[in-house]
Amino acid sequence: MPSRQRIREGDNVLLYLSKRRSYMVKVERSKSFHTHKGYVELDSLIGKEYGTRLLSNLDTEFVALKPSLRDFIFKAQRKTQITYPKDVALIVMFSGIGPDNRVVEAGTGAGALTTALASYVKPSGRVYTYEIKPEFQEVALKNLKKAHVEDYVELKSKDITLGIEEKNVDAVILDLATPWLVVAHAYGALRGSGNIVSFSPTIDQVVKTVEALEESGFVDIGTFECMMREMQVARGKTRPQTLMTGHTGYVTYARKALKEK
Amino acid sequence: MPSRQRIREGDNVLLYLSKRRSYMVKVERSKSFHTHKGYVELDSLIGKEYGTRLLSNLDTEFVALKPSLRDFIFKAQRKTQITYPKDVALIVMFSGIGPDNRVVEAGTGAGALTTALASYVKPSGRVYTYEIKPEFQEVALKNLKKAHVEDYVELKSKDITLGIEEKNVDAVILDLATPWLVVAHAYGALRGSGNIVSFSPTIDQVVKTVEALEESGFVDIGTFECMMREMQVARGKTRPQTLMTGHTGYVTYARKALKEK
Amino acid sequence: MPSRQRIREGDNVLLYLSKRRSYMVKVERSKSFHTHKGYVELDSLIGKEYGTRLLSNLDTEFVALKPSLRDFIFKAQRKTQITYPKDVALIVMFSGIGPDNRVVEAGTGAGALTTALASYVKPSGRVYTYEIKPEFQEVALKNLKKAHVEDYVELKSKDITLGIEEKNVDAVILDLATPWLVVAHAYGALRGSGNIVSFSPTIDQVVKTVEALEESGFVDIGTFECMMREMQVARGKTRPQTLMTGHTGYVTYARKALKEK
Amino acid sequence: MPSRQRIREGDNVLLYLSKRRSYMVKVERSKSFHTHKGYVELDSLIGKEYGTRLLSNLDTEFVALKPSLRDFIFKAQRKTQITYPKDVALIVMFSGIGPDNRVVEAGTGAGALTTALASYVKPSGRVYTYEIKPEFQEVALKNLKKAHVEDYVELKSKDITLGIEEKNVDAVILDLATPWLVVAHAYGALRGSGNIVSFSPTIDQVVKTVEALEESGFVDIGTFECMMREMQVARGKTRPQTLMTGHTGYVTYARKALKEK
Repeated sequence: MPSRQRIREGDNVLLYLSKRRSYMVKVERSKSFHTHKGYVELDSLIGKEYGTRLLSNLDTEFVALKPSLRDFIFKAQRKTQITYPKDVALIVMFSGIGPDNRVVEAGTGAGALTTALASYVKPSGRVYTYEIKPEFQEVALKNLKKAHVEDYVELKSKDITLGIEEKNVDAVILDLATPWLVVAHAYGALRGSGNIVSFSPTIDQVVKTVEALEESGFVDIGTFECMMREMQVARGKTRPQTLMTGHTGYVTYARKALKEK
Repeated sequence: MPSRQRIREGDNVLLYLSKRRSYMVKVERSKSFHTHKGYVELDSLIGKEYGTRLLSNLDTEFVALKPSLRDFIFKAQRKTQITYPKDVALIVMFSGIGPDNRVVEAGTGAGALTTALASYVKPSGRVYTYEIKPEFQEVALKNLKKAHVEDYVELKSKDITLGIEEKNVDAVILDLATPWLVVAHAYGALRGSGNIVSFSPTIDQVVKTVEALEESGFVDIGTFECMMREMQVARGKTRPQTLMTGHTGYVTYARKALKEK
Repeated sequence: MPSRQRIREGDNVLLYLSKRRSYMVKVERSKSFHTHKGYVELDSLIGKEYGTRLLSNLDTEFVALKPSLRDFIFKAQRKTQITYPKDVALIVMFSGIGPDNRVVEAGTGAGALTTALASYVKPSGRVYTYEIKPEFQEVALKNLKKAHVEDYVELKSKDITLGIEEKNVDAVILDLATPWLVVAHAYGALRGSGNIVSFSPTIDQVVKTVEALEESGFVDIGTFECMMREMQVARGKTRPQTLMTGHTGYVTYARKALKEK
Repeated sequence: MPSRQRIREGDNVLLYLSKRRSYMVKVERSKSFHTHKGYVELDSLIGKEYGTRLLSNLDTEFVALKPSLRDFIFKAQRKTQITYPKDVALIVMFSGIGPDNRVVEAGTGAGALTTALASYVKPSGRVYTYEIKPEFQEVALKNLKKAHVEDYVELKSKDITLGIEEKNVDAVILDLATPWLVVAHAYGALRGSGNIVSFSPTIDQVVKTVEALEESGFVDIGTFECMMREMQVARGKTRPQTLMTGHTGYVTYARKALKEK
């Protein structure tokens, strides 16, 4: 089944101007979108194929791209810290999740990581995402809807450090300030051999979480960080970029071993 | 739908001993698996829950884990270069693929990346993977079967630099020596706004590929590398690991813009 | 012989406010120095020991530090690109220079690297520094004087790609756009076993320079880059800094082997 | 004053075979040096210029290089952990030392860092190096003599955590397991505005040391790490090396502010 190719009214489109500037906009009739490079008429896009080039009234070229997962992650409204696609990619890989899996996540935040998890467990899996701050629920739901994955997510306005209600889940993903307080609950919620992945910016969070994992009966415990550096590529002038995000966080992962032998 | 929890005859199990030693073994009746820490009786695992601990005849403890995608990637028989889970994770993220997508890949190699792509496009998507060296087909098929994703893959014993037969695909993934020779074919095969991702160890491959992308009508072209460093975590002695894989390859990505305005 | 400890009129002092803010100022009578945290009376420093704390009129504390080499490097007036102390440190190490050595450098720029080289060859060594743009000479001389190393430096307003006048020098240090054009001249200028070190931001400069080194009879040719990342250290919150200078340049080094056997 | 150019009996020469293989050997009459590529007659080198190429009896070419500081560092007999030239270079830079300075160091170990410090404080400076384990003294002295810097070093068989005897020193350099126990002594030993630099592999050492620095009255306190990656340079095949030393240690530095205002 190929992806749908034509832009429809109500679609979110990524208006691409340059590597540094692109805009996620909703296509609506009689609406124009204004930038410092002029405005574009959005209803001219309806019925066009994704990837279409269009000109602003100032003759600047834009491309109407179909948003990818990494756009939904980057463009998620940020009332919390930024979640980077590289970290989402690695968290997903070490969570071992795929279509049909059931996953517990905390905290939801603006829903950037939730969107990614939902994208990989659909069509028949489910993400149960815990968030203690009620004000994030609305933001997260809005972002999930943009990516059309809201049907695969259950938003829970609960404190995960008090317990996890789901059982036999395939993975538990933690991106909150005190992951070590959730480790024992995660052990209870996971199926045998299930994966836990925790993302934390500080060393101390990592140490406490690894200790809790060791005590709770997890095995294959590991921690790493991933430093991503962009390249400037141009014949005769190729070089790494000067500025770089040097640290986002550490990824800690483990798998549940059963206690009885 | 939770994942199946009990080990069945014929399953591939990851016998975990330590961070450095684990073994992918097929569970068969009347068979034992020998290690330097003694042997384990594999049929004792049948009917047990994944995550079960078991003892070798020398009383060493193993854990029978359910293999995750990253195990299938790492344990793929390697007649080619190693493919790292971190790179697979980033390639998947920048490819934008998810369930139901149609993806072209080249070259197949031992099928490590193919396995990952198939895992993320199932249940109704498909991977069309090109490989010029026929001797890899058998290895790749074996690895795909281990991960139970062979139904989502079409192995093609063809030279992708001569052309791509598929049309309107969602993504093209290149991990071969001359990606720039495939860029124009990829443009033809992709739907509008479709993603191309290329993985190459050398700078010169990157430069040629980026130039080909620019000439062919792709936009949002970027290249990055990702350096992963493991941590030794232990209270009072926490530090990054001394040895590190400093370079695997550069990831180059782009999206197809249509030519007409 | 201990370093001089008391601040004298005419000394350059580093007025330290915080990790992010410090000021190199010349101590003069009846002069005050103004900052956003108030002003300090500079003549109150005369006769005081280096390291003295003093208060601005707004009661903010400053420390009057004795400038170190890295301060002279960082505070050098920059009409050119920034030279980083980490790169200077590595260039000096791979140049093998020490007291009494004779060193050729190009280009001078604002004199940041020149200052470092001079600091390490004094008291009886000498730096011959070539610069094609005459406008830099004045800036460089001013910076060398601040660091009191002008007596160990000969500023040459010449194009080093046309030749090097010195013979039997211990090291040649290149930080200019076309280092490969200087390699053969460097071979002629160096004593046997002498060191050449070249600093370049792009890969292409590195490739051309390494090729020239191989052709000219150098051995032990190597290239590396050094990524420096700062840490935020605070009990319970320790982590690498978010932002990082991801790339400054590659360091290429080699040693002169004689041609005859 | 140019460096001496001719090889004399008794000199240590670096016999260079390749990037991976070179040998520090003492030139003596009637002595040959054996390698897997044949042997070379060492007395044939006497009177030759440094940089001379010579052939082994199996016709393999070696180059007789004059050892640089980084050779003395790398070839120092290692009964302790390895000290890397990159770390030595950065420690020297952040110590602010130069000719004539007086420096306290601990621990001496095999004398690799001591050799570097001595090389930069000669001809009239001095390194006072503390080591608690007497068995290192002999090794360190031997390494210092190889580099001809023994006259600038005082080897002290004392426990620096019990106190520092020197006063008004320009810098204190710490490379031992418990640097935080030396910080208060370092404060007492340093002149105003003097530099302290500490090198430690673990995060916990860094945190304790930074806390001690803050409590003792130091300012401009910072910590960084430096990741060095070698490049494979060859036209059309240029790329970073696969294997890399991912971590050696963190460098922490600070400067002494006086207590009175």
